[in-house]
Amino acid sequence: MRPVAVIGIGKTAFGAFPDRDLRSLAVESIGYALSDANVSPSAVEALYLGNFAGPSFVGQNHLAPYIGVAAGFQGIPCTRIEDACASSGSAFFHAWMSVAAGVYDTVVAAGVEKMTNQSTPRVTEILAGAGDMSGEGRAGATFPALFAMIARRHMFQYGTTREQLAAVAVKNHANGAKNPHAHMRKVITLEQALAGKPVAEPLTVYDCSLISDGAAAVVIVPAYQAHRYTPRFARVLSVAQTSDPVALDEKGDITTFPSVQLSGRKAYEMAGLTPEEIDFAEVHDCFTIAEIVASEDLGFVAKGEGGPFAASGETCIAGRKPINTSGGLKSKGHPVGATGVGQICDVVMQLRGDAGERQVKKHRIGLAQNLGGSGATSVVSILGAA
Amino acid sequence: MRPVAVIGIGKTAFGAFPDRDLRSLAVESIGYALSDANVSPSAVEALYLGNFAGPSFVGQNHLAPYIGVAAGFQGIPCTRIEDACASSGSAFFHAWMSVAAGVYDTVVAAGVEKMTNQSTPRVTEILAGAGDMSGEGRAGATFPALFAMIARRHMFQYGTTREQLAAVAVKNHANGAKNPHAHMRKVITLEQALAGKPVAEPLTVYDCSLISDGAAAVVIVPAYQAHRYTPRFARVLSVAQTSDPVALDEKGDITTFPSVQLSGRKAYEMAGLTPEEIDFAEVHDCFTIAEIVASEDLGFVAKGEGGPFAASGETCIAGRKPINTSGGLKSKGHPVGATGVGQICDVVMQLRGDAGERQVKKHRIGLAQNLGGSGATSVVSILGAA
Repeated sequence: MRPVAVIGIGKTAFGAFPDRDLRSLAVESIGYALSDANVSPSAVEALYLGNFAGPSFVGQNHLAPYIGVAAGFQGIPCTRIEDACASSGSAFFHAWMSVAAGVYDTVVAAGVEKMTNQSTPRVTEILAGAGDMSGEGRAGATFPALFAMIARRHMFQYGTTREQLAAVAVKNHANGAKNPHAHMRKVITLEQALAGKPVAEPLTVYDCSLISDGAAAVVIVPAYQAHRYTPRFARVLSVAQTSDPVALDEKGDITTFPSVQLSGRKAYEMAGLTPEEIDFAEVHDCFTIAEIVASEDLGFVAKGEGGPFAASGETCIAGRKPINTSGGLKSKGHPVGATGVGQICDVVMQLRGDAGERQVKKHRIGLAQNLGGSGATSVVSILGAA
Repeated sequence: MRPVAVIGIGKTAFGAFPDRDLRSLAVESIGYALSDANVSPSAVEALYLGNFAGPSFVGQNHLAPYIGVAAGFQGIPCTRIEDACASSGSAFFHAWMSVAAGVYDTVVAAGVEKMTNQSTPRVTEILAGAGDMSGEGRAGATFPALFAMIARRHMFQYGTTREQLAAVAVKNHANGAKNPHAHMRKVITLEQALAGKPVAEPLTVYDCSLISDGAAAVVIVPAYQAHRYTPRFARVLSVAQTSDPVALDEKGDITTFPSVQLSGRKAYEMAGLTPEEIDFAEVHDCFTIAEIVASEDLGFVAKGEGGPFAASGETCIAGRKPINTSGGLKSKGHPVGATGVGQICDVVMQLRGDAGERQVKKHRIGLAQNLGGSGATSVVSILGAA
């Protein structure tokens, strides 16, 4: 496997865009990424497109050539990847692999979702399809319920508190308020977070990520070619994708995601790095408890210490290990299929020193963690500054 | 890229199975393939799963880990690929690529679809999502209508007749009648085919492929390792995936699929073969006209000669260039996501000399062609005997 670089990134704003269709969002993000990379569409050799549920949300399937042709790609393999909320994390994994293994030189990984045209109950029903519909789904357990159970168990087992969950929301809202591309740019207090409308006890509306429209794209090439395009590239140090049961009741301990631990270990090993050497991270905070569990499963703190860690201030932009400086899924938004590649864009922005008032001090090595369902898919990517 | 071999194949029967769920079909086919290959589930390093519309047909998404974990795979990347009716052709392409490029040694490509629990109008609506829903779909043009337009134009431009279309149906039904795994094992006459219930003029019900449930899987390894597992392997000589516009009205000439021509040219070039050197083929006869167009686009005959070729008897099992000895999508059935890998299984059966009364005389080199939508995706694979 040869070293690979990200030479261009592109994101639409995340939000509710009633007058935009899915394809135009995806094409816009790809256009930004190609322009950022100084690459013409005709030079692209393959498109890997992450999308969770375009057919269910907007009735359109066969999305990869639908978007690829509109983006100006000519005759190349255009492939849609679906791995629930990790769809575009997986698209990035496969795009990276195809370049690292020497199959292609110039590849685009993108992700898109258009969700806000559906009612919240219908969105919740579509999202439930990322869990086991023959068990959890049949019993009425949607994702807020599943993550509420995870939170409850984490509280029971490790003494995690509602205040610690709320601290994740407060931090991510503070970060998102500074991100011009975020869906909800609204600072909240701990009191507000704690007093939020209940969704699934102990989770309130402030513990849940947003239903958003949006798209993101990156252009990748072999690292030795990166300088030809731009001095502002980022190195892909490792990417790992793993799997685990879809149904929560098939897992042994629901306070941990073995797929995240395994993909983390693989990514650290491939990059030759330890969790301590990660300067900052974008993790998959679909719910506040998920950020706490991720900080443990990725080895930033020991098991059970994720709650105090979240409340300590150490994960803030000025802290020792900044997490979700973009605002995370909580505040930046969670257009499901776009989230994984969106995280890569956010990590690259920090590595480049382009994050403005959200810029972290140490930005040599960043990590992105993208979760599918309740841990049936995990993708961990580690990137380094040029 | 290193040479790759298929060391195991597995298919469920194709048909209407009201008491079977999607996962059990997929797991059954993977089990057959692993057993055929003498490979244990724990040795598999990645799963590429083709599925077109599980979420729409049965409400279940996130299918790759859902199926992979049930098949006994442990922690590996499990990725669903969606490229309309070419979903598992694309899964095979990516599985092949990952082994050919040296990323993995032991990979499973599989495909599955469960369709018959929905009404025919609803199936037709879901399938329309493989076309452009903002144009064709909005105008009410479902796939039978789109391929009827292709047939009409082919008749106008090249003098193709309804008898020639019907000849494809008669042959494929004759072949399918001899295939124990086929959905519809029923011999039909030319008169019956011509007198079929109209679907979209000039296509009758006998010109249209079947709505089916089913699954298929293959195990692939580097060719140098194949002998360790089985003497009954097949060599993958080439695989190529290409794209083209989704909407029929964006194409210049609707009597040809540029994506099929391009993927064919790439596959021939990679394999170092000409169309004349292909002993037999499984082509994507979603409609009878599609087999005629494929025989032209793949270079078996010149443009416009597909009709007379179909009626000549040369594409029958005993003919010069047997096509769809399995019965094709027309008679074997078309569980959309399973079709591409199903074709690979059928080609390997012929290469091994295992096709029983359907066995072709010359079976050194076989081709499989899998089409997505009205040509927005094409995958062509060429395989050779051990």
